[in-house]
Amino acid sequence: MKMNINPSDFRVPAGERVDLSTWPTNVKRVYTSKKHYHKLLKAQVEELSALQRLHYASNHYAMLLIFQGMDATGKDGAIRHVMSGVNPQGCQVFSFKQPSTEELEHDFLWRTTRRLPERGRIGIFNRSYYEEVLVVRVHPELLRNQRLPDELPDGKTIWQDRYRSIVDLEAHLHRNGTRIIKFFLHLSKDKQRKRFLDRIDDPDKNWKFSNADISERKQWDHYMQAYAACLRATSTVDVPWYVVPADNKKNARLIISQIILDTLNQLNMQYPDVDKERHKELKSIRKRLLPKNQD
Amino acid sequence: MKMNINPSDFRVPAGERVDLSTWPTNVKRVYTSKKHYHKLLKAQVEELSALQRLHYASNHYAMLLIFQGMDATGKDGAIRHVMSGVNPQGCQVFSFKQPSTEELEHDFLWRTTRRLPERGRIGIFNRSYYEEVLVVRVHPELLRNQRLPDELPDGKTIWQDRYRSIVDLEAHLHRNGTRIIKFFLHLSKDKQRKRFLDRIDDPDKNWKFSNADISERKQWDHYMQAYAACLRATSTVDVPWYVVPADNKKNARLIISQIILDTLNQLNMQYPDVDKERHKELKSIRKRLLPKNQD
Repeated sequence: MKMNINPSDFRVPAGERVDLSTWPTNVKRVYTSKKHYHKLLKAQVEELSALQRLHYASNHYAMLLIFQGMDATGKDGAIRHVMSGVNPQGCQVFSFKQPSTEELEHDFLWRTTRRLPERGRIGIFNRSYYEEVLVVRVHPELLRNQRLPDELPDGKTIWQDRYRSIVDLEAHLHRNGTRIIKFFLHLSKDKQRKRFLDRIDDPDKNWKFSNADISERKQWDHYMQAYAACLRATSTVDVPWYVVPADNKKNARLIISQIILDTLNQLNMQYPDVDKERHKELKSIRKRLLPKNQD
Repeated sequence: MKMNINPSDFRVPAGERVDLSTWPTNVKRVYTSKKHYHKLLKAQVEELSALQRLHYASNHYAMLLIFQGMDATGKDGAIRHVMSGVNPQGCQVFSFKQPSTEELEHDFLWRTTRRLPERGRIGIFNRSYYEEVLVVRVHPELLRNQRLPDELPDGKTIWQDRYRSIVDLEAHLHRNGTRIIKFFLHLSKDKQRKRFLDRIDDPDKNWKFSNADISERKQWDHYMQAYAACLRATSTVDVPWYVVPADNKKNARLIISQIILDTLNQLNMQYPDVDKERHKELKSIRKRLLPKNQD
């Protein structure tokens, strides 16, 4: 069941200027009906689950998936629907909210580095260190909590410095076997309005809505500028950003799953080799385990 | 009580080729007698302790001291004697021995990054991530435990990649307020022989001697080459290496303490400002705490 999804359509080319108004928030659906969507997603999840077993057994690479986007872009839903078939032993999700006091006492990459996935695992960051050049850029007063030394550069330099720290860290991780995929869930402002209304109208979704969401929405344009600058500065050949059209949640999930599958399929993985010597050993152990030899 | 120690004499200039045979393992003593040494060290430790109180209160910078050197170069002793006067609440020492299974599942910088000092603290690494380009370079078979992906570069490239990861990390930490001082305790091979004999002859020191020390000693020249390449590649203007002559332990400790003091003194630190408003508030609280107002 091949879907017509080409991951490179959504990849931000390294070093290229990004104008988010030219990136679609909606593209042609890859499914024809709800039933068809479920069938497609199920097949994707099954393939992902099988690849993750291999990834876990081969134990050479780690995989890090980063999800960023405005409120109500469907980050939680995408993680839930795409990753639910994967054995949780090989998969860990971390959501990064406001940093704790201990975390603020460290450099801005420390708290996420502690949570990086081990080899053989898929780590998922629901929001990430990228918040440090997104929400913090839109609200620079947050920098004050970070107790940076006074002589640190003001204005634009600090964001350039942070991009550099991020690009350097990701390059280091890539060199050492961690494959990183970064998803920006790209939603239209109008679609966010509708989803907020839905959260207010549906009692079961009320808990998902917070008044702060509205004040952040007012900063929409600032956020889009911060995202555009960030995507441009930090999308690299080895560690690219993908801009996923998010107005249609189901479509977004299928696109995301395809990008993950493509990346996993490109890795050189195999089940650990069992050599002749070991085969002989296993055979002999097997013999001793047979009922007639039980002591 | 000014000593005649100029830290820049021991600093490895950024980018310069390093030939360790031209760096002394012994220099003119800065003290005239044992008594004089104790007096000097005491004064240094007192100044360090006062500066650390200020460092802790101002809470903008973190300080990381890295100690590297062959066996019996006096790393433990230097840490004990120089840092003993400092309030342990603002100071934490980590010794990095063989990595654990969990640590090996991560990239080679992960286990030390978790232990980085918070703002206001002095963190001390007794051995560090530098082992990854020193002992691992002399014993490349250790790389196999690290389960790196097969397509990773062999030969020299991996060390250059690791230098780059280290330099990038240290530059990031420096930009974000961590000041890093790196000490290579430079001992002559003959002096190591004498200290090993001492450890065998003195029953109280027997525990410090392990047979592995002798097999590592056989690799002396390989280690010196690995150190020289490492110092050259990773001594930068902001995060320099210091080659401390270590044949005389007492002298080495005085030199180390002076380098730390100089670095701390260059930081822009002050006790947190208490403004007029707060003064008024404190005054009013004080009033309510007086015995006659007790309720």
